[in-house]
Amino acid sequence: VQVQLGGVALNVADVERSVAFYSEVFGLEVHQRIPLPAMTEVIVGPPDGAAGSSVMLVQHDDRGGPTDPSEVVEKLYFVTSDVHTLYDRAMAAGAEPVAPPARATAFPVTIALVRDPDGYKIELVETPA
Amino acid sequence: VQVQLGGVALNVADVERSVAFYSEVFGLEVHQRIPLPAMTEVIVGPPDGAAGSSVMLVQHDDRGGPTDPSEVVEKLYFVTSDVHTLYDRAMAAGAEPVAPPARATAFPVTIALVRDPDGYKIELVETPA
Repeated sequence: VQVQLGGVALNVADVERSVAFYSEVFGLEVHQRIPLPAMTEVIVGPPDGAAGSSVMLVQHDDRGGPTDPSEVVEKLYFVTSDVHTLYDRAMAAGAEPVAPPARATAFPVTIALVRDPDGYKIELVETPA
Repeated sequence: VQVQLGGVALNVADVERSVAFYSEVFGLEVHQRIPLPAMTEVIVGPPDGAAGSSVMLVQHDDRGGPTDPSEVVEKLYFVTSDVHTLYDRAMAAGAEPVAPPARATAFPVTIALVRDPDGYKIELVETPA
């Protein structure tokens, strides 16, 4: 099973304000914009060829920013070649199940959701080979 | 100015429990252990040669886990070749100052601290060339 930590997704009050800030100050570039029904996700990361992590900035349509601990970190996300095996491994390690692997409707990916020992949500994403 | 996002630092209740979980399930390896006077920081990331982000797991000696929004995400951390220029750039972009660049006492690094538009703490770390 290939597994790669994509990064952390942070909830922000105004995603465009955040994109501007992280671009201007730290030189991060927009890698992907993911418009969803009730939220917008924007992945910013290092410019082409540079090393470093990415971070996902998340704006919920019905929120003005994070308000309680469970809403500060949206999730950690891991990209994997086999979401079923990874989900089973997480269950065996004592992770709390949230949603078993299921094909997403809007994108060609299969997604599962668990919680780590502190309750942080972890999304497991299998993309087409 | 070279800038690289190291990753996000999450507060956890039991750092060894978290290290075990992320190793066992996701194959992340310990890159660095940073014992500090009142807290322990452990950076876990991809095995040698693998792509992907790192995450810093932080356990405060006097806490049993995150309790309010400001304690869930400890910080984002950027590694840079010039912390003074980066700090000035953050100020110019409207970041809230927390601590201007100062030489750390325990490690040979110079560190500054600011807050992003949502109030997330951002640590700027200049390491020796």
